[in-house]
Amino acid sequence: MRSLFLTAAAALLIGAAPAQKLPTPNDIVAQAPASAWKTIPADELMIIDLKNGGPIVIQLAPAFAPVHVANIKILARGGYWNGATVYRVQDDYVAQWGLNDSDKPWPAGVTAKPPAEYVRPLKGLGITPLGSPDPYAPGAGFADGWPVAYSAKAGWANLAHCYASVGVGRDLSPDTGTGGELYAVIGHGPRQLDRNIALVGRVIDGIDRFSTLPRGTEALGFYKDKAQYVPIASIRIASDMPAGQRPSYEYMDTSTATFARYLHLRANRHDDFYIQPAGGVDLCNVQVPVRKKA
Amino acid sequence: MRSLFLTAAAALLIGAAPAQKLPTPNDIVAQAPASAWKTIPADELMIIDLKNGGPIVIQLAPAFAPVHVANIKILARGGYWNGATVYRVQDDYVAQWGLNDSDKPWPAGVTAKPPAEYVRPLKGLGITPLGSPDPYAPGAGFADGWPVAYSAKAGWANLAHCYASVGVGRDLSPDTGTGGELYAVIGHGPRQLDRNIALVGRVIDGIDRFSTLPRGTEALGFYKDKAQYVPIASIRIASDMPAGQRPSYEYMDTSTATFARYLHLRANRHDDFYIQPAGGVDLCNVQVPVRKKA
Repeated sequence: MRSLFLTAAAALLIGAAPAQKLPTPNDIVAQAPASAWKTIPADELMIIDLKNGGPIVIQLAPAFAPVHVANIKILARGGYWNGATVYRVQDDYVAQWGLNDSDKPWPAGVTAKPPAEYVRPLKGLGITPLGSPDPYAPGAGFADGWPVAYSAKAGWANLAHCYASVGVGRDLSPDTGTGGELYAVIGHGPRQLDRNIALVGRVIDGIDRFSTLPRGTEALGFYKDKAQYVPIASIRIASDMPAGQRPSYEYMDTSTATFARYLHLRANRHDDFYIQPAGGVDLCNVQVPVRKKA
Repeated sequence: MRSLFLTAAAALLIGAAPAQKLPTPNDIVAQAPASAWKTIPADELMIIDLKNGGPIVIQLAPAFAPVHVANIKILARGGYWNGATVYRVQDDYVAQWGLNDSDKPWPAGVTAKPPAEYVRPLKGLGITPLGSPDPYAPGAGFADGWPVAYSAKAGWANLAHCYASVGVGRDLSPDTGTGGELYAVIGHGPRQLDRNIALVGRVIDGIDRFSTLPRGTEALGFYKDKAQYVPIASIRIASDMPAGQRPSYEYMDTSTATFARYLHLRANRHDDFYIQPAGGVDLCNVQVPVRKKA
């Protein structure tokens, strides 16, 4: 038999590991106590349904981009995205959606020119350090479930562009984007965008509905014909949905000993499949655990 | 108008930059002299056609995994992959293809148990250092067009797992994989696999034919039903194709001043879109330029 698992989770398929073995990162997640998890508030979950299926669930990050996030909620609630599509999919980069080049008026309450929420003060964030060097910033780690880069000396912190990160499309500076056009990362984390654009959250469920879309053939992955645009059926905030339909998710509290153990094991893989642990890990490869609540 | 380009290449769409501006990485590629490019030998190109289209072009890396690469050429030439499929697609990880669990005999000449070609001697490689810290190894840089990690002290080097890297599926150690089952990375570079598995090349054209495939719903992204398997029409080495049908590609010589300039600009983006260059870059985000020859 040549099954060739190629994965850290291979042990799952070949039966339980002997008791003396070190746990895997997945073991830590499976055994984490309830106290290691935090529920995402329903008004910080945005649910996108494509016409061909859903949901795509996005956790919003008001602690990092409060004005952009407030805009996004107003846009969702005001029906701004009626008729929205995914109109740009660039391989190893982003899928982007919205109204693309529309002059539709903003709903009342939208801040048309938000501040450049590309960094925030480090102060007020409880950081769990990554413990490995980061090429993009003096420091890197985790704050309330989010991957962040920071400078302790200069006092700033930013959300990091990792796989599934969601950001705000913008024109050239000084434009900062309003929130009407959003993108999700579908390739290797384009960290060079950090501190150049507002990140507002991350896809926590259904990212494959974006990542499997056909790539656009025009420059920057724009679709050539409007017939290729992927229609969006609805974009809603979970707290606006009927209680019975409202999904709920939780993420691992990155200030806990459980997360510290998970992080250590992500940097030092001892699963059966591994023979040479790296002794380090990059910020985007840690993948803070997030899961749907029953 | 709200076009919201979100890209370093936005300048391409809004006209040429004034002469005094710094060039972009794309400018460096466009202006590179012929001497900065190296043609990939035709016997180091593997061409995969899916039944629903192609090609997917893979550059092989015999300098890093000579026995596995030799096996792969024998498998292609011996028709081993007749009936092969893509049978596993795991989001943000890999697409994997081959015969999946077959007991088909190897063609004559295949080394059934290759050595663990996970690292090679650093000696003999001309390294252009990355110039940024790497979380996975003491050193990182580029050798003859490939992203590599290395230890100058211990004297080893390894190909790095980046987006589009191609590796050899294997069972648990001491199995090293024969080359019959291969995978391509379709997400954030899973560098934790470095030095744990043999990398044999990279997809240089057509990766989106893998990255857009539906994700498998079984553990590790295996497709549940064989009806979901994606059939492969042919796997050929370019040098075995008729001269008129043979594609040709070239990559930027990473030992040149042109590449050094490109690398510097990838770490210090000054395109019109950027307002805050990172001053660093990770190994997988440099993306050695590769292009089809006319």
